[in-house]
Amino acid sequence: MCEENNWEVFVLRLGHRPERDKRVTTHVFLAARAFGACGAFYSGQRDEGVERSVKKVVETWGGNFTVQFIEDWIAKIREWRKNGGEVIHLTMYGLPLNEVIQKIRSSNKDKLIIVGGAKVPKIVYELADWNVSITFQPHSEVSALGVFLHELYMGKELNKTFENAKIGIIPQERGKMIVRTRS
Amino acid sequence: MCEENNWEVFVLRLGHRPERDKRVTTHVFLAARAFGACGAFYSGQRDEGVERSVKKVVETWGGNFTVQFIEDWIAKIREWRKNGGEVIHLTMYGLPLNEVIQKIRSSNKDKLIIVGGAKVPKIVYELADWNVSITFQPHSEVSALGVFLHELYMGKELNKTFENAKIGIIPQERGKMIVRTRS
Repeated sequence: MCEENNWEVFVLRLGHRPERDKRVTTHVFLAARAFGACGAFYSGQRDEGVERSVKKVVETWGGNFTVQFIEDWIAKIREWRKNGGEVIHLTMYGLPLNEVIQKIRSSNKDKLIIVGGAKVPKIVYELADWNVSITFQPHSEVSALGVFLHELYMGKELNKTFENAKIGIIPQERGKMIVRTRS
Repeated sequence: MCEENNWEVFVLRLGHRPERDKRVTTHVFLAARAFGACGAFYSGQRDEGVERSVKKVVETWGGNFTVQFIEDWIAKIREWRKNGGEVIHLTMYGLPLNEVIQKIRSSNKDKLIIVGGAKVPKIVYELADWNVSITFQPHSEVSALGVFLHELYMGKELNKTFENAKIGIIPQERGKMIVRTRS
């Protein structure tokens, strides 16, 4: 996960439209955080509501997950690669997850994972080191990202703990148990 | 998957609100379909737009995935159990996925997987056979469902084929290749 590997994982969410994507983009960011990414970038239109929602989760549930709006996402991808990182684009048109995940996992490069919005520009397929499909069916960038990170971290993210959490959960067969871990 | 196991999987999405949840609920249903469930039920408010979106995907991409609105979801859960099925509620407060998935996988009972909306009524925790957490962090019902089904089917769903698809995808390192499989 973020703090525990030699490499870092960030997510890049393309083409955010506040009205239409508000909740799905928030879910993308929260899934990124829960499944072990260090932070996320997004392009499209700035949305302070989404940023605030994620910040509030981080303040309550801990960790250092960050969200940053970027104007020029092509420059961000190029910069990432120039700095030695690799770029993984999740798309239903790419290579099957199980054919590539082992190579991606063992590469030791920082990973930028791109998830698109409605229409992904062609150049993304060219700029990415890996175009990876999570099933060959239409579904959701949220489930694609969750399953990709789950495979990348081989399930270890399921027990990840987050530093400086105000509250935590004690697993229960039924009902909820929440404990305050600091004020 | 749906047609290939002794047991069937359906998803129950609680408390749908058309305005707010339109896209997330659609993503829940598409993830359910892509990751091998047979169909879904939902409660809350009827939303023909969401039903149409999913139907269109099924017509194009194949399979028999169905979506059905139900008024009385408590009766549905009770009926499911009465008919010998088991009920799995995905919640961040439940037991860890890796502690329970093997038992759920090997039970041979039809599985109804419940994913909640904003506020899940207490009775769900009581009615469910299993309350299962996919990480102990807040994220998304879409990523929770994707990862749960991925583990339930042990990754075999990634290569699932859908009968009567009009189009299909040929995996590519770069770009898109779509083939028409029938008119």
